[in-house]
Amino acid sequence: MIVVMKQGATSAQIVNVTARIEQLGCRVHISEGEERTIIGVIGNGRPLDRRPIERMDGVERTVPILRPFKLASREFHPKNTVVPVNGVMIGGKQLVVMAGPCAVESHDQLLETARAVKSAGAHVLRGGAFKPRTSPYSFQGLGEEGLRILAAVREETGLPVVTEVMAPQQVPLVTTYADILQIGARNMQNYALLHAVGEAQRPVLLKRGMMSTLEELLMAAEYILSHGNDRVILCERGIRTFEQYTRNTLDISAVPLLKQLSHLPVIVDPSHGTGKWRLVEPVSRAAVAAGADGLLIEVHPHPEEALSDGAQSLKPARFAELMQSLEPVAEAVGRTL
Amino acid sequence: MIVVMKQGATSAQIVNVTARIEQLGCRVHISEGEERTIIGVIGNGRPLDRRPIERMDGVERTVPILRPFKLASREFHPKNTVVPVNGVMIGGKQLVVMAGPCAVESHDQLLETARAVKSAGAHVLRGGAFKPRTSPYSFQGLGEEGLRILAAVREETGLPVVTEVMAPQQVPLVTTYADILQIGARNMQNYALLHAVGEAQRPVLLKRGMMSTLEELLMAAEYILSHGNDRVILCERGIRTFEQYTRNTLDISAVPLLKQLSHLPVIVDPSHGTGKWRLVEPVSRAAVAAGADGLLIEVHPHPEEALSDGAQSLKPARFAELMQSLEPVAEAVGRTL
Amino acid sequence: MIVVMKQGATSAQIVNVTARIEQLGCRVHISEGEERTIIGVIGNGRPLDRRPIERMDGVERTVPILRPFKLASREFHPKNTVVPVNGVMIGGKQLVVMAGPCAVESHDQLLETARAVKSAGAHVLRGGAFKPRTSPYSFQGLGEEGLRILAAVREETGLPVVTEVMAPQQVPLVTTYADILQIGARNMQNYALLHAVGEAQRPVLLKRGMMSTLEELLMAAEYILSHGNDRVILCERGIRTFEQYTRNTLDISAVPLLKQLSHLPVIVDPSHGTGKWRLVEPVSRAAVAAGADGLLIEVHPHPEEALSDGAQSLKPARFAELMQSLEPVAEAVGRTL
Amino acid sequence: MIVVMKQGATSAQIVNVTARIEQLGCRVHISEGEERTIIGVIGNGRPLDRRPIERMDGVERTVPILRPFKLASREFHPKNTVVPVNGVMIGGKQLVVMAGPCAVESHDQLLETARAVKSAGAHVLRGGAFKPRTSPYSFQGLGEEGLRILAAVREETGLPVVTEVMAPQQVPLVTTYADILQIGARNMQNYALLHAVGEAQRPVLLKRGMMSTLEELLMAAEYILSHGNDRVILCERGIRTFEQYTRNTLDISAVPLLKQLSHLPVIVDPSHGTGKWRLVEPVSRAAVAAGADGLLIEVHPHPEEALSDGAQSLKPARFAELMQSLEPVAEAVGRTL
Repeated sequence: MIVVMKQGATSAQIVNVTARIEQLGCRVHISEGEERTIIGVIGNGRPLDRRPIERMDGVERTVPILRPFKLASREFHPKNTVVPVNGVMIGGKQLVVMAGPCAVESHDQLLETARAVKSAGAHVLRGGAFKPRTSPYSFQGLGEEGLRILAAVREETGLPVVTEVMAPQQVPLVTTYADILQIGARNMQNYALLHAVGEAQRPVLLKRGMMSTLEELLMAAEYILSHGNDRVILCERGIRTFEQYTRNTLDISAVPLLKQLSHLPVIVDPSHGTGKWRLVEPVSRAAVAAGADGLLIEVHPHPEEALSDGAQSLKPARFAELMQSLEPVAEAVGRTL
Repeated sequence: MIVVMKQGATSAQIVNVTARIEQLGCRVHISEGEERTIIGVIGNGRPLDRRPIERMDGVERTVPILRPFKLASREFHPKNTVVPVNGVMIGGKQLVVMAGPCAVESHDQLLETARAVKSAGAHVLRGGAFKPRTSPYSFQGLGEEGLRILAAVREETGLPVVTEVMAPQQVPLVTTYADILQIGARNMQNYALLHAVGEAQRPVLLKRGMMSTLEELLMAAEYILSHGNDRVILCERGIRTFEQYTRNTLDISAVPLLKQLSHLPVIVDPSHGTGKWRLVEPVSRAAVAAGADGLLIEVHPHPEEALSDGAQSLKPARFAELMQSLEPVAEAVGRTL
Repeated sequence: MIVVMKQGATSAQIVNVTARIEQLGCRVHISEGEERTIIGVIGNGRPLDRRPIERMDGVERTVPILRPFKLASREFHPKNTVVPVNGVMIGGKQLVVMAGPCAVESHDQLLETARAVKSAGAHVLRGGAFKPRTSPYSFQGLGEEGLRILAAVREETGLPVVTEVMAPQQVPLVTTYADILQIGARNMQNYALLHAVGEAQRPVLLKRGMMSTLEELLMAAEYILSHGNDRVILCERGIRTFEQYTRNTLDISAVPLLKQLSHLPVIVDPSHGTGKWRLVEPVSRAAVAAGADGLLIEVHPHPEEALSDGAQSLKPARFAELMQSLEPVAEAVGRTL
Repeated sequence: MIVVMKQGATSAQIVNVTARIEQLGCRVHISEGEERTIIGVIGNGRPLDRRPIERMDGVERTVPILRPFKLASREFHPKNTVVPVNGVMIGGKQLVVMAGPCAVESHDQLLETARAVKSAGAHVLRGGAFKPRTSPYSFQGLGEEGLRILAAVREETGLPVVTEVMAPQQVPLVTTYADILQIGARNMQNYALLHAVGEAQRPVLLKRGMMSTLEELLMAAEYILSHGNDRVILCERGIRTFEQYTRNTLDISAVPLLKQLSHLPVIVDPSHGTGKWRLVEPVSRAAVAAGADGLLIEVHPHPEEALSDGAQSLKPARFAELMQSLEPVAEAVGRTL
C-alpha cells in the first residue's frame, strides 16, 4: 500500500500515519516529492485494510499495490489447476462443454436434451432445479424433484451434472445429487453460500456477478478456496453495461486475463453472456479462440415452450452444428474437443 | 406485451404466435403496419414470460408494456406506506435518520456512538454484526455477540436498531434482536433470503444492489411483499459506474422515481453511496431536497481505527453539524427532522 | 508516479527502469518490499506519460499520484472563480438559472419562453441553434437564423444567451451572437473545438460527456484554460449507466467533488440528467442542496409540439413553481436565487 | 411506435394523442387492454420523434418499434458491402489487418514499422498524425508533417494508409494524403465531422464511441452514408465499464450483431479494446473467430519509447507471431489472411 499525503501535510500528520502503520505490524518507507510526501507501506504478509488510514488527517488517498487474492493467484500456484469430474478433466487440453436446459422441466425434457447433447459431444449436463428469477411470479424450478430427475438422467446417459445451489442450507441436499455445484451470478457475493460450498466435497462452478470486477470474482473464489475447497471453476457470463441489444456484454478479455492472474479453469457462458441464440455460435467460437477451457451452453428441444430463457437456448440440431464448427477452432489454438 | 414480427414474417408464423398466446390464456390484437405486423397481447392478469415467445419463428422481439411488479406499485396502493418502528414512523412527514458504525466492534464503541447520534437527533441506531466483506481475510463482524451488544445498547439508549442479515438461516436469530432487518446490496437478489425475511415479523430495509435497476429493486421488494411482509423500506445506496473518484455513483433521481412508482418509503445511504466522508454532508442535503424519507449514515467515534469503512464514516461532531444543516433543508421541502 | 515491479523482477530490469526515468528528467526513490520493488518517481513539474514505462520489462503496472490537471485545480487556484456575464455573476453567492427551449424554433416561440422564464426569475436564456442529433433525419436546428433570433430576443428581454457551438469553424460566428458558448456532452473530448473556444473571447459552458469521468471533464477544462480562456463553467448533466427508467443517471456527488477539486463554477442540467420532466423539480432542488452554482433547465411553452426533447421540458407555469420551490432550499444552504 | 397510455387515461386524452399522430401524417391503431389503452402508430415511412408525444397528457411512455437507421441496415441492403482500398478488399473473404504505431513519430520509426508489418502480412498501415489526447500537455501528433511521412512510407512500401481526422476543416488536407479516413471513438458523435467525411471521396473507418450503443454507432454510420459516402467500415474498440484491469471492455458480441444488423464491414481494435499488449493476441483470435472482417493493431518497434500508447503496442516480432497464430483460426471459420 502507498499512502499519498496531501500537499501541505504537516510533519505531525506524517508522524501519526507512520506510527499507525507501524502499530499494525508494517514498516514504512517515506519519500518526499516536490509537492507531496508519499509513504510506502511494507507489509507483514497479511492484507491491510486501507480505508481507516485514508481517514487520517493529512492523507489524500491510499493506493493498493498487492493483489488482494492469494490462493487464487497464479503467483501462489503457477501450474494450471485441473478439476476432475467423473473422468472429465476441466482445465486440461481438452475443452469441456456443459450443455442442457436452463431449467429442468420434466424427466422427458431432460432426457431428450441429454441424449442430444451427448451425441453431439457434450461432456457435462446442465440444468437448474432451483432457479433464481427476478419475479416471484415466475417459475422457480422443480426443487428436489428436479434434482432427482438430474440424477436419474445421469444414470441413463453417464453424463455428470452441474446444477445451481442458491442457499447455504441447500448445500447438503444438492451435494447428494450433483457432480458440480453452481453458484449463480446473483450469488457471487453471497458470502454465507460461498462459505458453505467451500466446505462441501464437490467442485464449484463460480459465475461472475453481472456487475463484478475480475478482482471481485477472484476474491469470491478466494472465499471458497480459503474454506478448504480447491476445486473451483471460474465462469465468465457477461457483465451489465449500457448496451441494449444484448442482455449482457460478454467480457472476452476476461478469459486470457483470468488465465494470467489465476491458475483456475475458466469457462464461458455465451447463452447468458448474450441472451440471444443467434449470437451463441460466434461467441462460443470466440471464447475458444481466446483460450477458454470450456463452455456452458443452453440447449432446449423446444425453446419456444421453455419455462425460462427460451430466447437464448439452442435447439439440439443447432447445438450439434455449433459443436462441429468449434472443432477446427479448438484445433487452431492447440486444443481438442 | 407487444410482439414485433420480422419484416416479411409469413401468415403461418403470425398464426402460430397468436395460437401460442391464446393457449396461454391471453387475447391478441393484430396490427399490420407498412413494414411489419405487430401483435398486441391482452393479458389475463397474470404476468407472462416474454422470452419463449421471442424464440418463435418470425418474431423479431417482444416489448413489455406492464410493469412486472404489482404489490410494490403505487397504482396498486396509491397511498404512501408508513412503517412504524418503536414509535418512529418511517415514510411520514418526519424524516428518519439511522446512524451508527459500519460494524459493531465493542459495547463501548457502540454505546459511545449511540449516545452521540441520539443527542444529535438520530432516530434509529445502525450497526453490523454480520458483515459481508469482499475479502475472506477481512473482519467479518462479531456475529451473535454483536447482536447482543446492539440489544444492550438499545436498552440503554431507547434507540431501535437496524442490522444486516446475510443468510436465511440467520433470520430467526437476527429477528430476536433487531427492530429492522437489513438486506445488503450484495444480497438484493438473494431470493432465498428475500423469501425468509418475507415471512419474518420485522420491517425490512432493502438496499438496492450496486448492479440493479430500479425495476429489479422493486421486484426484490415484490418478493418480500408477496411472502406476506408489507413493511419494506427501500434504500438507494449508489450504483456502480465507470467513475473512479467515488466508490459508487449515488442515483439521486432514484428517490423521486421510486416515490412515483411505489408507495414504499425511500431512504438514502450517502456513506456507501459516495465512499467519502467529505461528500456525505452535501449528498445528504441533496437526498432530503429530492424527497427522501430518511438517511442511513455511518458514524464512528474514531474512523481511523474503524474495523471497516472508516473512510466514509463521520465523527460524531461532524454528524451533529450535518443534522443541524439538514434542518433548514427539510423545512424547505415541507418535512421535519 | 509509482512503478510497481513484478515479483521476481531482476536488478537489471530495475536499473533499466530507473535509468529511463532519470533520462526523462525525474528522480527515483526505490523501496524494496518483501515481495516486490516499488519505484517512486519524483517529477520535474511536467506531467509524465506512464504508459511507455508500463511496457518495460519487469514492470507490473504504474500508479499515478498527482492529478493530471493543474490550471483547473483548486490547489493551483484556491479561490472560487466567478464568471461575470452581462452583470450575472456565475459562481457567486447568487444561484444562476439558465432556462429556455432545447432548440430555437421561431422568434415567437423563443420570445414567449424568454419572457416567461425571465418573469419567473431566470438569469440567462438557453436555446440551441445548432443541434447535435443522433439521427441525420432529425431537426438539426435553425443554424445562423437561430442565432439571430437569440440575439433579437436578448435585445427584447435583456437576458444574456447561452447556445451550443459544434465545430471549430463555427466559433467566430457563434461568438458574434452568444454571451456564453456551450460545449455539448458529445463534444467534451472534441479537442479541436476545445482549442478553438480556448482562444475565443467568451465564457464557455462545458458539459460533462455522458461517458466521461470527472477527471476527464477537468482535463477538458484544462484544454480550454491552457489556451488562454479562464472563464470556464462546468456542467454535470448525467452519465450513462445500465439504469433504464431515466435517460441518464445524474451524478449528484459530482457537484461537491468538482467544487473540492476545482475552483470553477459548477452548474447542473436536470433536464438532460433525467430525461423526464417529472423528475426535474426534485433533482433541481437536490442540485442546489448539494452546492451547485446554478441550473440549466429546459422550458418550452408547448412541449408536446417541441421539435426536440419535449419529454424533458417544463411548461412555463411549472418552471415558475420550480423557481418558487427552489428559493427556500437556496436559503437553507446559504445561497440566494 | 407504440404509445402506452396511463391507467385511467381519459377518452379525451386518447383522442388528443391520436389527433396529434394523424396530424403528423401517420395512422393509428387502438388496442384497449384490461388496464391500459395502447395506441399503435403506423408510419408514413419517415422516422417520428417519440419525445413530444411522450409529453402529452395521459401518456405513460412510448416504445420504438422500427430501427432508426435505414441506409446502414441489412434489411435495406442485404448483401455485404465490400470496400476496396488500393486493391485490398475490406469485407471480403480475406481478412484485412491494419497495423502500425499509435502515432507517427518520425520517418525512420514509421518506415521500420511498415516494413515489419508488411513482411508479417499486414495489408494497411495505420499511424496517427493528429492525436486526440486527454491532456493538453501530451504529444498531439506531428500534424501535416506526419501526413507527409505517411505518404512517403506508402510510396516506399506500397501499403495504403489509414489515419485519423479530428476536425471538419482538416478533412481536405487529410484526404490528400490518406487512403482511409479514421473517425476516432471520441468523435463518433461529432456530427459536423461526420457530415464532412460523408462528403469526402475516401473510405471511412468509424470507431465506436467508448460509451456508445451499437444503435448509435449505426446512426453515426447513417450520417456518413446519408451525406453520400457509402464506403464506411465499422470498428469495435471496446466500451467503458466498471472493470478496472483492462482499459476498456471489448464487446465481442458486437461483431456478429453488427454483421446481422448491417451490411457494412466490421473490424476490431484489440489494442485499444484491452489496453494491454498481453491481451492483444488472444483477443485478436477471438475477433476473427467471431466473424470480424479485419483487425486494427498497434505495433511499435520500441514500445517503451513510444510517444503514446506504448503499453498496448506489440513489438514487430510479437506481431509476426500473432499473424501466424491467426492463420489457422481464420481458416477454421472459412476465411483467409
